[in-house]
Amino acid sequence: MYITDTKKTKREKTKGGNSIWWLLSEEIAVPNFELRYFEIKKDMHTSCASHPWEHEIFVVKGIGLLKGKDLDGRTFERKLKPQDAVYIAPNETHQFFNYGREAFGFVCVIPKGCER
Amino acid sequence: MYITDTKKTKREKTKGGNSIWWLLSEEIAVPNFELRYFEIKKDMHTSCASHPWEHEIFVVKGIGLLKGKDLDGRTFERKLKPQDAVYIAPNETHQFFNYGREAFGFVCVIPKGCER
Repeated sequence: MYITDTKKTKREKTKGGNSIWWLLSEEIAVPNFELRYFEIKKDMHTSCASHPWEHEIFVVKGIGLLKGKDLDGRTFERKLKPQDAVYIAPNETHQFFNYGREAFGFVCVIPKGCER
Repeated sequence: MYITDTKKTKREKTKGGNSIWWLLSEEIAVPNFELRYFEIKKDMHTSCASHPWEHEIFVVKGIGLLKGKDLDGRTFERKLKPQDAVYIAPNETHQFFNYGREAFGFVCVIPKGCER
């Protein structure tokens, strides 16, 4: 059993300049998947990404905009609010924007080892 | 890409009488892990459980109490608050109590197919 939060876990910066906390990660020997918390400041966004693993996301605070392209090449653009759950399938193009006035924060779970 | 919330997803009842929403599950063909949202009302708790798969949890609202026993037989009891992340290792005994006055809500991720 292990408990942490964003105060006890080290904050890191993503390539795009956003904050990430690896709350439940390889470092504590999770067997299958890692749980991170992201925070995107006002007027900022993530890099546009596509990769062979999935994201499972739960929005914690703020308002976001998700832009992307599905596997059939169709673009999508959807607003996100707290308590929305989002599935990004493997190889789907995706980019998250802060679309509100406060920080946009969300939990993002990935298969272990894919992003380190 | 798939987006849902607790209004769009069917609420189900656990054996212990608590609410569970399978937000991102096998039904939408997630490849590896399933993301559920639990809500435990005031004065209620989950069943005491132990099983060979892990839980990765993120507390969304309310105050909880986690009681359990680790793999060395040591008991633990820890208070939980919003934005705490909790890892329950495979085969650790665990039980969640609502320890506050409002509903206690948390996200719980498990390996796909373990609880259906």
